[in-house]
Amino acid sequence: MSETKIPYKIYLTEEEMPKAWYSMRADMKNKPAPLLNPGTGEPLKAEELAPIFCEELVKQELDDNTAFFEIPAEIRDFYKMYRPSPLVRAYCLEEKLQTPAKIYYKFEGNNTSGSHKLNSAIAQAYYAKKQGLKGVTTETGAGQWGTALSMACSYFDLDCKVYMVKVSYEQKPFRREVMRTYGASVVPSPSDTTEVGKKILAEHPGTTGSLGCAISEAVEVATKNEGYRYVLGSVLNQVLLHQSVIGLETKAALDKYGIKPDIIIGCAGGGSNLGGLIAPFMGEKLRGEADYRIIAVEPASCPSFTRGVFAYDFCDTGMICPLAKMYTLGSGFIPSPNHAGGLRFHGMSTILSQLYHDGLMEARSVDQLSVFQAAEQFARVEGILPAPESSHAIRAAIDEAIKCKETGEEKTIVFGLTGTGYFDLVAYEKFHNGEMTDEIPTDEQLAASIAKLPKIG
Amino acid sequence: MSETKIPYKIYLTEEEMPKAWYSMRADMKNKPAPLLNPGTGEPLKAEELAPIFCEELVKQELDDNTAFFEIPAEIRDFYKMYRPSPLVRAYCLEEKLQTPAKIYYKFEGNNTSGSHKLNSAIAQAYYAKKQGLKGVTTETGAGQWGTALSMACSYFDLDCKVYMVKVSYEQKPFRREVMRTYGASVVPSPSDTTEVGKKILAEHPGTTGSLGCAISEAVEVATKNEGYRYVLGSVLNQVLLHQSVIGLETKAALDKYGIKPDIIIGCAGGGSNLGGLIAPFMGEKLRGEADYRIIAVEPASCPSFTRGVFAYDFCDTGMICPLAKMYTLGSGFIPSPNHAGGLRFHGMSTILSQLYHDGLMEARSVDQLSVFQAAEQFARVEGILPAPESSHAIRAAIDEAIKCKETGEEKTIVFGLTGTGYFDLVAYEKFHNGEMTDEIPTDEQLAASIAKLPKIG
Repeated sequence: MSETKIPYKIYLTEEEMPKAWYSMRADMKNKPAPLLNPGTGEPLKAEELAPIFCEELVKQELDDNTAFFEIPAEIRDFYKMYRPSPLVRAYCLEEKLQTPAKIYYKFEGNNTSGSHKLNSAIAQAYYAKKQGLKGVTTETGAGQWGTALSMACSYFDLDCKVYMVKVSYEQKPFRREVMRTYGASVVPSPSDTTEVGKKILAEHPGTTGSLGCAISEAVEVATKNEGYRYVLGSVLNQVLLHQSVIGLETKAALDKYGIKPDIIIGCAGGGSNLGGLIAPFMGEKLRGEADYRIIAVEPASCPSFTRGVFAYDFCDTGMICPLAKMYTLGSGFIPSPNHAGGLRFHGMSTILSQLYHDGLMEARSVDQLSVFQAAEQFARVEGILPAPESSHAIRAAIDEAIKCKETGEEKTIVFGLTGTGYFDLVAYEKFHNGEMTDEIPTDEQLAASIAKLPKIG
Repeated sequence: MSETKIPYKIYLTEEEMPKAWYSMRADMKNKPAPLLNPGTGEPLKAEELAPIFCEELVKQELDDNTAFFEIPAEIRDFYKMYRPSPLVRAYCLEEKLQTPAKIYYKFEGNNTSGSHKLNSAIAQAYYAKKQGLKGVTTETGAGQWGTALSMACSYFDLDCKVYMVKVSYEQKPFRREVMRTYGASVVPSPSDTTEVGKKILAEHPGTTGSLGCAISEAVEVATKNEGYRYVLGSVLNQVLLHQSVIGLETKAALDKYGIKPDIIIGCAGGGSNLGGLIAPFMGEKLRGEADYRIIAVEPASCPSFTRGVFAYDFCDTGMICPLAKMYTLGSGFIPSPNHAGGLRFHGMSTILSQLYHDGLMEARSVDQLSVFQAAEQFARVEGILPAPESSHAIRAAIDEAIKCKETGEEKTIVFGLTGTGYFDLVAYEKFHNGEMTDEIPTDEQLAASIAKLPKIG
C-alpha cells in the first residue's frame, strides 16, 4: 500500500495557502447572464443590491472580469484555524475496489460547521464587520450553513440571526445547539418576529415552514433593521469566488507532486462546493491550457442539471429574490424529503449553469440508496463518516474507479468530500434498517413545475 | 497575530511519525503494582490472562522493562489514515485571554470515532487478527470507545460485538448507528444473550444497565466463544502504551520548533489520554533529563486522584475483573450523571496512580459548569466544538493562562484535546438553558464507598 511516495494526506504549508480567490468568470467567453430585477426585468444594479448585501460583496457579485481577488489578511488568519484542508489519497478505498485508478479527495469536514460552508461564511462576516454593520441574517435548512455563519460571526463579534425551517429546528435540535454555542439567535420559521412570518402563520396555521419562507423572513429582518444585511451560503457568484479556495488548495497540492487529474467530481446543490473545487481547473480549460473531465453529481430526486431547463427563474420559493438564468426545475418545485438537504435546491449557480450549457462539464444524477451504499463503503475503509451530500460525489468516484478496473486505465480521480455526517444519523439509521426510499419526480411533475417559470429572458 | 513563525497547526510528515510506542514503566523506579487474581490474591500470570486478552497484548500488559515497542507496519499504515494529528497553536484563544502564555493543544478528534480511542482500538484489533481470531467483544458507555473499535474491526474484517449500556443505547441512538455503519453488532446491556445478562434481568427487571454489567457480558461472550477475546479502551498498561503515539507526536512537533513546554495538561478518566500525552515528557522527567509540571484534570463529581485512596480495588462494578492498585473511590461508587461519560470511572490507570503517588504529577478537580463555560469560550475562538471530557483540560489550561496574565509569565502550556462534542449536544443544550447542575459526592458518601474496598495489598 505504501509503494508510492505520495503521502496519505497532502497538506500545504501556511505559506503555500492561496492569497487570492480566483473567479472563473474572468476566463469565460460566455459570461453568466446577469441577475434581473423581478419587477422591471432589467439587470440589477449595485445600488439595488446594496440594501440587501454588503458593499464589497455586491462588487464581487457583479464583477465579471477580475480574475483574482486578494484574500484579506484577517480572513487568511481565520482560514489558518481550520485550513489548509487535507487532500487525501484514498489508498484504502483503491485497495478495497482493486482499481488501477488513483483516487484523491479534498476533505472539507474538519471544522465544527462540518463542511466547506465556513469558507464563504467567514468572508461574508468579514465584509459585514468591515462595513461597520451590527449583524447579519440568514436562513438555514439542515443547518450546515447556519452553523458556519454562527462560527464566523462569533469570531468577528457580529450579531447573527438565523431563521431555521421549523421542521428542521424541531427535528435537528443538535444543530440548533451548535449555533447557540456560537452565540447566534436561532428562530424557527415561520415566526411571529416578521410581517411575512405572521402572514404565513395566519394563512397556514401549524405549517412546519420552508426554505423559501425562511429566506423571506431573513431578508425582511435585514432590510428593516439598521445595520443588518442578508447573507446566503450558495448559488451566488460571490460564494463560488470564496469557495475557490478549495480548488486552489487542491491544485497546489497536486502540483507539488506533479499530479494531473483526469476526472474531477463534485456534488451539486446550489453549486458552492463544485464551483469552488473546479475553479482553477476550469480556468485552465477555459484558457485552453489543459483539459479535464468535470462531473457534477446531483440527487435523482432534485435533478436540476440533468432534467431541468436553462432559463430565468426565481432563486426562492417565495419569489421575492432576483431572477437568475440557470438550470432550474421551477421555483415551485418541491423536492421529495431526500436526506441530502444541502442538494435540495430547484436551481443552480448561474456560472455553473452557463459552463454546463456550453458543454464544459458533465452532470449525472444518482439515487439515494446507491448514495448511502457508497457512503458506508467509504466510511468503512477511509475512516470518515461522510455527509449524504458529499456521498453523491463518492458514488460517482467509485463508479468511475470501477470503470477503470474494467478497462485497466490508471486514471486519476479527484473528488470533493464536502463534509461529515454526524448530524445525518437518522438517515443512516433508515439505511441500516432497510427503510430508505427515494422519490424521483415524474416527467409530468417536472413539466408542470417548469410550465410556471416566469416569462422573461 | 502572525508575528511568530510558528504555524497555527504543526503537522509532522509521515516520515516523522513515531515508529515505536514508548512505555513509561521502563523508566519508573517504582513500577506500578501488578494486577492480582481476585480469587488467590496472587499476581496474575500470562496464562491466566490468555483466555481473555490476545497473546501479544498480554505480553505488553505485563512487560515492565521494555521502553520501546515497534509499531507494526499495518498499524502505521492505518495511523496514516487519520494521523499525524495536528498540534495547534491556540493563537486565537491567547488573544481572547490577553495572556502572555503560549498555548498549544494536541487535537485527536479528526476521525469518525471523534477521539483518541482509535489509537489503541486499531492496535488491539490488529493483534486479534494476527492471532487468527474471529472477533472481539467490548463494552461501551457513551460510545466513543465502541465506535473506535468498530472502525478498527471493520478495517481488519473482524467481528465486533459491543455491549452498550442500555440507557446510552436508547439515549444515544446516533452513536449506535455509527457503530452499525462500521458493521458492529450493538447489543443493549443487560441483554438475554448472556447468562450474566439473563440473571441481572431476572433480578432487576427494567434496569437500564451499567458499565459494570456490560463488562461482565462482554467478558462472558469472549471467554465462551471460540476465537473471541475481550478488549478494553482505557486503564490498562497496553492502552497507555498505544496512546503514547499522542505524546510522541506532540514532542516531535514541539522539538521541530525548539519549544519546551512548562505545563502539560490532560483530562483523566481511566488515564488513556493523559498517559499517552505525557509519556515521553514523563520519560525525560523520570530519567532526570528535564522537568515539566504535569496536571491531571478530573470531574469534581468523580475525583479519584484528588479524593480517592491508593489501594487495590476491582476495575469493574461487577467485581469479576482483576484487582489493580490504583487511586480509587471504590468499585461500588456510582458517579452522578455528569456529561463527561468518559471520565466517570471510579479508578485510574495503575501507572498514573503510581506516578501521582510518587509526586511526579499533580491533579485537580473541576466542576461541570466551569467546564462548559471553558468549552464554549474555546469553541467560539478556536472553531472546534470540544467533548465534555476534553473540556476539563481546556478549563485547567485557561486557568493557568489567566495566572500567567496576572504574573506576566510567558509560560508554554500544552494540553490534550481528546475529542469533539458532536454527540454531546444534549449537555450543551442544558448548559445554554441554564439547567446544568453538578453533584459532588460528600465526604460521607466517599468514606462509605471506600470502606468497602477489598482487604488486599
